[in-house]
Amino acid sequence: MVPANRYWGAQTQRSLQNFDIGGPTERLPPPLIKAFGVLKKAAARVNMTYGLDPKIGNAINQAADDVISGKLIDEFPLVVFQTGSGTQSNMNANEVISNRAIEILGGELGSKNPVHPNDHVNMSQSSNDTFPTAMHVAAVLEIKEGLIPALKGLQYALHAKSKAFDSIIKIGRTHLQDATPLTLGQEFSGYVQQVKNGISRVEGVLPRLSMLAQGGTAVGTGLNTKKGFDVKIAVEISNITGHQFVTAQTRFVFEALATHDALVEAHGALNVVAVSLMKIANDIRYLGSGPRCGLGELSLPENEPGSSIMPGKVNPTQCEALTMVAAQVMGNNATVSISGSMGQFELNVFKPVIIKNVLQSIRLLSDASRSFTRNCVVGIQANEKRITQLVNDSLMLATILNSHMGYDNVAKCAKKAHKEGTTLKEATVALGLLTPEEFDEKVRPELMLYPDPEVVVAP
Amino acid sequence: MVPANRYWGAQTQRSLQNFDIGGPTERLPPPLIKAFGVLKKAAARVNMTYGLDPKIGNAINQAADDVISGKLIDEFPLVVFQTGSGTQSNMNANEVISNRAIEILGGELGSKNPVHPNDHVNMSQSSNDTFPTAMHVAAVLEIKEGLIPALKGLQYALHAKSKAFDSIIKIGRTHLQDATPLTLGQEFSGYVQQVKNGISRVEGVLPRLSMLAQGGTAVGTGLNTKKGFDVKIAVEISNITGHQFVTAQTRFVFEALATHDALVEAHGALNVVAVSLMKIANDIRYLGSGPRCGLGELSLPENEPGSSIMPGKVNPTQCEALTMVAAQVMGNNATVSISGSMGQFELNVFKPVIIKNVLQSIRLLSDASRSFTRNCVVGIQANEKRITQLVNDSLMLATILNSHMGYDNVAKCAKKAHKEGTTLKEATVALGLLTPEEFDEKVRPELMLYPDPEVVVAP
Amino acid sequence: MVPANRYWGAQTQRSLQNFDIGGPTERLPPPLIKAFGVLKKAAARVNMTYGLDPKIGNAINQAADDVISGKLIDEFPLVVFQTGSGTQSNMNANEVISNRAIEILGGELGSKNPVHPNDHVNMSQSSNDTFPTAMHVAAVLEIKEGLIPALKGLQYALHAKSKAFDSIIKIGRTHLQDATPLTLGQEFSGYVQQVKNGISRVEGVLPRLSMLAQGGTAVGTGLNTKKGFDVKIAVEISNITGHQFVTAQTRFVFEALATHDALVEAHGALNVVAVSLMKIANDIRYLGSGPRCGLGELSLPENEPGSSIMPGKVNPTQCEALTMVAAQVMGNNATVSISGSMGQFELNVFKPVIIKNVLQSIRLLSDASRSFTRNCVVGIQANEKRITQLVNDSLMLATILNSHMGYDNVAKCAKKAHKEGTTLKEATVALGLLTPEEFDEKVRPELMLYPDPEVVVAP
Amino acid sequence: MVPANRYWGAQTQRSLQNFDIGGPTERLPPPLIKAFGVLKKAAARVNMTYGLDPKIGNAINQAADDVISGKLIDEFPLVVFQTGSGTQSNMNANEVISNRAIEILGGELGSKNPVHPNDHVNMSQSSNDTFPTAMHVAAVLEIKEGLIPALKGLQYALHAKSKAFDSIIKIGRTHLQDATPLTLGQEFSGYVQQVKNGISRVEGVLPRLSMLAQGGTAVGTGLNTKKGFDVKIAVEISNITGHQFVTAQTRFVFEALATHDALVEAHGALNVVAVSLMKIANDIRYLGSGPRCGLGELSLPENEPGSSIMPGKVNPTQCEALTMVAAQVMGNNATVSISGSMGQFELNVFKPVIIKNVLQSIRLLSDASRSFTRNCVVGIQANEKRITQLVNDSLMLATILNSHMGYDNVAKCAKKAHKEGTTLKEATVALGLLTPEEFDEKVRPELMLYPDPEVVVAP
Repeated sequence: MVPANRYWGAQTQRSLQNFDIGGPTERLPPPLIKAFGVLKKAAARVNMTYGLDPKIGNAINQAADDVISGKLIDEFPLVVFQTGSGTQSNMNANEVISNRAIEILGGELGSKNPVHPNDHVNMSQSSNDTFPTAMHVAAVLEIKEGLIPALKGLQYALHAKSKAFDSIIKIGRTHLQDATPLTLGQEFSGYVQQVKNGISRVEGVLPRLSMLAQGGTAVGTGLNTKKGFDVKIAVEISNITGHQFVTAQTRFVFEALATHDALVEAHGALNVVAVSLMKIANDIRYLGSGPRCGLGELSLPENEPGSSIMPGKVNPTQCEALTMVAAQVMGNNATVSISGSMGQFELNVFKPVIIKNVLQSIRLLSDASRSFTRNCVVGIQANEKRITQLVNDSLMLATILNSHMGYDNVAKCAKKAHKEGTTLKEATVALGLLTPEEFDEKVRPELMLYPDPEVVVAP
Repeated sequence: MVPANRYWGAQTQRSLQNFDIGGPTERLPPPLIKAFGVLKKAAARVNMTYGLDPKIGNAINQAADDVISGKLIDEFPLVVFQTGSGTQSNMNANEVISNRAIEILGGELGSKNPVHPNDHVNMSQSSNDTFPTAMHVAAVLEIKEGLIPALKGLQYALHAKSKAFDSIIKIGRTHLQDATPLTLGQEFSGYVQQVKNGISRVEGVLPRLSMLAQGGTAVGTGLNTKKGFDVKIAVEISNITGHQFVTAQTRFVFEALATHDALVEAHGALNVVAVSLMKIANDIRYLGSGPRCGLGELSLPENEPGSSIMPGKVNPTQCEALTMVAAQVMGNNATVSISGSMGQFELNVFKPVIIKNVLQSIRLLSDASRSFTRNCVVGIQANEKRITQLVNDSLMLATILNSHMGYDNVAKCAKKAHKEGTTLKEATVALGLLTPEEFDEKVRPELMLYPDPEVVVAP
Repeated sequence: MVPANRYWGAQTQRSLQNFDIGGPTERLPPPLIKAFGVLKKAAARVNMTYGLDPKIGNAINQAADDVISGKLIDEFPLVVFQTGSGTQSNMNANEVISNRAIEILGGELGSKNPVHPNDHVNMSQSSNDTFPTAMHVAAVLEIKEGLIPALKGLQYALHAKSKAFDSIIKIGRTHLQDATPLTLGQEFSGYVQQVKNGISRVEGVLPRLSMLAQGGTAVGTGLNTKKGFDVKIAVEISNITGHQFVTAQTRFVFEALATHDALVEAHGALNVVAVSLMKIANDIRYLGSGPRCGLGELSLPENEPGSSIMPGKVNPTQCEALTMVAAQVMGNNATVSISGSMGQFELNVFKPVIIKNVLQSIRLLSDASRSFTRNCVVGIQANEKRITQLVNDSLMLATILNSHMGYDNVAKCAKKAHKEGTTLKEATVALGLLTPEEFDEKVRPELMLYPDPEVVVAP
Repeated sequence: MVPANRYWGAQTQRSLQNFDIGGPTERLPPPLIKAFGVLKKAAARVNMTYGLDPKIGNAINQAADDVISGKLIDEFPLVVFQTGSGTQSNMNANEVISNRAIEILGGELGSKNPVHPNDHVNMSQSSNDTFPTAMHVAAVLEIKEGLIPALKGLQYALHAKSKAFDSIIKIGRTHLQDATPLTLGQEFSGYVQQVKNGISRVEGVLPRLSMLAQGGTAVGTGLNTKKGFDVKIAVEISNITGHQFVTAQTRFVFEALATHDALVEAHGALNVVAVSLMKIANDIRYLGSGPRCGLGELSLPENEPGSSIMPGKVNPTQCEALTMVAAQVMGNNATVSISGSMGQFELNVFKPVIIKNVLQSIRLLSDASRSFTRNCVVGIQANEKRITQLVNDSLMLATILNSHMGYDNVAKCAKKAHKEGTTLKEATVALGLLTPEEFDEKVRPELMLYPDPEVVVAP
């Protein structure tokens, strides 16, 4: 029943038939499969220290490398929507690795000899501890090797813009309405800070994610495993991946099988990153809106024609992709939270859907951040002429006069100018509150960017 | 730059490079591509009535068939996270169909001659009306041809069980605590009703989903299209698909481009279906829990070995897959709602992520319902011995005595039996409230399944 | 232990002490208490037809009126976060009404004589059918008497604006970028349509909401109730409220106790309304942004000073309140969905939190729609001068030239004008593609608002 | 227009009229009002060091104390759904405090003399920095003084149970199915760990929450404030509250006004706590299900009668309240995330709805944890007889035989016993695989609670 050219075995095949849900795009994601490779390799190494025949152990070790490298990815056809413990994917890994190891040792595929999927590849393990371990390993690797570098790239690109725009004074906007001025560099510094905080938030979840359930076996007690196995395997996984993992101490293991709070927490950090990126991308596309009828303060790179019907139209497509990613991640947060809340007794059986959503969110945030950085942020240009014109036209510069002439008089000037369509200066002078010279001396945007060390205290 | 063997063109290629986000699993789903085929075919037919050269029109018509059939699916490599209008996918369709039509007519791929992607394939259209149209067509077809039949299959299977279990009296449970009895058939009738209502809910969104934006072009005014085009194309799409679609009347079109309320509404119905299925699957797995230490009222089919470490264990894996699907759909509901809320002025630019989530939810609910029906529901068996034992042991049968001896006396009996671990009968008799014979006559579960036409009114 | 001046009794008091969660603002909302009054009144009337002593029945009937009128609202101190069946609130209603009835009959409060809270006020009922019934009655009344009139008011106000703005031609915006023109009336027609559809969506859930669980008692079988009670009580409730309610037919009742799919569905409709209002309010505040540095196409009413520091600032505060309501409702949708998914066996025990969120969403959407209509929409004014200036400056008018000179030439003109900061006309003439006279004849925004019946087909 | 006996002024009154949304239960929560008291008190103190007349400053200082103590809570009638910056609530605070200060100084209410709401109470402040500051102060105080102690109480109570149940061996359950044994103490240790991690998660958000925006004024630049004001006010707030707050350094301030990422992050931690508590409460109510027809391993305290129709029924009502709280918090997480994502340029205008949801979640989690601890956890008793009976009946003890007789033989025994309804021992002996004595020696649950240091490696 299993196709002849396949490394997978009967249990994988049965899952394929029993869970015909969603098709190939719903397969468990490659980083999880890779993590299974890491785990099985580590297990073989540790099991050899406990007496596993080195011939078998080394063959498993080598076969697992082919899983890690991605060479055998097509041998992992199972979808997310299978058993909620991921048992079938653990068995898939056992079957593929045992058959590949058998092949290496010159045996016959499917014979379970000399390398048995359960007795050897799965030795001292249960699906209930391997799957959570693979979840954590995959999430940590993807965060460290994918997301954090991508976010750092974005942070640096935004920071470079913040510096470059440091002397460009622009109108501030609160409630979408004209407000007091700031520099474009200050505005971008907010984005820099958001991304930087995002990196801290994601890093903050790594300690708990780096704690592994391996060694708990079926219900967390460690039955059928050997004393010390749990610690040794965390060490091996650290060696193989180059990232530090630790074993969940005994009393943590029950929590680590029955719940996925650590992944709910991790996705919470991804959710904040999504929220931040939504804000940044929204701002940038509004600031770049136009070319003639929008705010027009920024020019975004023209990466592709924008319209199949309107010639010359350029759209903020990178912002759009990023905001769609943010919306996806925010929805995934609900899926992960709901799934995480529904563990029962010794096991949470929403494991595959949890890790799928976590890994999708990490991947999308990584890729989209990189794409946004490269195809948008680095090419942003400030339209200084437009920016200066807007800030000079604004009525909100009047705010600086509060301490000179009082809130009520200032409001009178701003309202008069607004109503009559004149400049603030004209209105102020017309009301006899300041001379033109006084106005020019006092109302200077460059004085409004910082606290004033000399401001006179109001009466 | 475009690979030589590809039908797609420069605009598709540029999108591929600019939006390297998520990889192949994030491609726009096949039902949407098929809907583009339907739409472009319909457009060609209508455009011929407005003067499009029949040689060109017929070639487009034929090329579109290859998109509809799925033969050209690999020519649609673009991912969800592109421009939020889906313009690039509309262009992808234009390019692929024009090149295939050129090929049919013996021309040179990439020459745009004699079939131009914009001037001919996209004639009288804009991305801003084609993409929403394709979204609606895809959603309607998937619902009608996929989801509704799958839910009906589930409804029938549950109904058959409800009938088969009609005479099995069991303990009811409220607050998870023992309550008054009902039949297992009655319990299943609740599930039947949930699924039946779910079908009604999904059918209820079809009228608004069957309304098409086509003819609105860029901003809803219909600029650059011809009078009557909008009505004719809805007729053609109906002819091609065999399902009725109508054109959104003029004043609806602005809403149909700028918002996707109809899809948010549709996903709301999918969300209710998910909520229902979560409840049903949870109940069934709890009723099937055991074999020795759970409720044990149902036996679920043994489809696969349940544990890599615990022999003989059989798990409710179909329930698990279904609840994971429910959690995914509930999260997708957030993504769709957030995306739907963020339209701006004349266009909502979260189109790809909206339709991706809608189609994923439809597909998962369809497949999972089918899998659950076939691999679980039809094979469910009632453990009558266990069920009967439980209902007879229960103390809640006492409720029927309320009108005979008053609430307070009844409570006394139940509490005494509970405290002393005896039967309800023993306690009642010991308290001198009824003779054994009276007890047997009055406390019969079969009298507790319906309103009593003769019950004496309380004093 | 119960304060002497209180109508409530021991069971209410115990709940107060055992569920000290959230304080007074978390009390069950008044519309639910009112619905309990309706229900208990209807039950007394029906019970009299089955033999309940009319003296008692009439006293209950009268006491219930004091609950309906709101006079006794302070006697319902229990919070949402109590038992999940709402039993304690049902008991609260029984206690208050029996004591008030005792008072009417000249008896002693707390004596349970001559009106017993369980035997008389709760006669033929269980918390498990009364609470769901009260949930439905409350939701229907609030929707029909509160939400729908409020949304209709908003629809009419938007429609009036759409008519008033019908001849104002403005720039369209897609991707936030300048696009082809439309009228401001057309733009507002999209909002009208959204609200109108919202009303339809909410009306669409009323049939299932108007179906009542009453008569199912503890687990849906109708034990301890009399044949016909279920139908009669729905009739009485219809009489009392003036809105039509029907009894859930036998086989529906199990669904009606064990699930709240009908309320999840109802909240789904509220969620779409929230999504629509978010879009409308966002558009309006962006169109009203300025006064000098925003889009400035609309003037919103100045209802209050906007800033404690910036004189003369006017903010779109009604839009802000409305979008905050939308965000609250979208979150409530998650709470209701999660709660709805977690029913167990014969009862869903998330009843109070479900109805609280449903009623809060209805109330907020009603109030905010009314406030937005009255304090914003009716006072919106179009800044015609600004609107006309923007549309005339725009480059996207070029789109109409596609059929005259081809997409590529048109793009050349638009890009040249963009680059050089000139008008589209200047660029087109400079490129020798049209004479000034030809340009003026062809490029007229008023020709771009509808499909062109005479447009020449592209070659 | 302002009622004569009120401290609030015209701006509060206008908001009351313009935002008639939701009624009194939607008022901004007391902890936020208290935080405004703290802030205004601190501002007065700092402003005196910059020259504010001490007579005025001291009166403000004293008036603010009446806000902090809660004495003036009825003077803060504004609802959440007002302007999104919370400006009106800042003005409310200014008005109430100035009037109270005027009263203290013997002036006339409403005269703004000698204490002006804007010039004195709001001196050096803007709504745009005061409201975010009050948000953070309120959240930190509620977390530190409310939530963390409540969670610690729960952790200790669960830990005490874990210790007390340490020697009770019970059946494990994975997939709801019988699995290998563990102790009830081990099972509870998972809950302890969840709560403990929850406390860490919540503590982990305090550093960013303790950073204050004060000093940024309108757009983050600090215009109209004095150098050093920002640092001094954080010191004063620390002094007043007894908790350490710091000022957001200059370049953080833009982020602190325009976004509320820190509160989205904080609510993410609350969301994980909710997810954890959902799991714990679900487990406990299932383990306590019965009394006759459920799992029946635990007895939960009988706090109140459970049913108005079924005598003697006791329900897990504290679990129900807690799970409803969890569902509310999970929905609030969506509201906060959506709101947080929609900041625009220099200001996020979803401030009131964000802080309302954050404070509601904190309050509900605090109160419900306390209620659950006191009214449920401390009174939980283990039904040892039932627990022992179940574990002894179980077939999963066979797992320990894997290494003795191999997986396939073990499966045979378990399946035979299951099919024939015999004990595992009977089946194993009947199959001739072990003698009764061997069985008794090897199959002992107490050997299955830990990794076996002597287990023989499989061949």
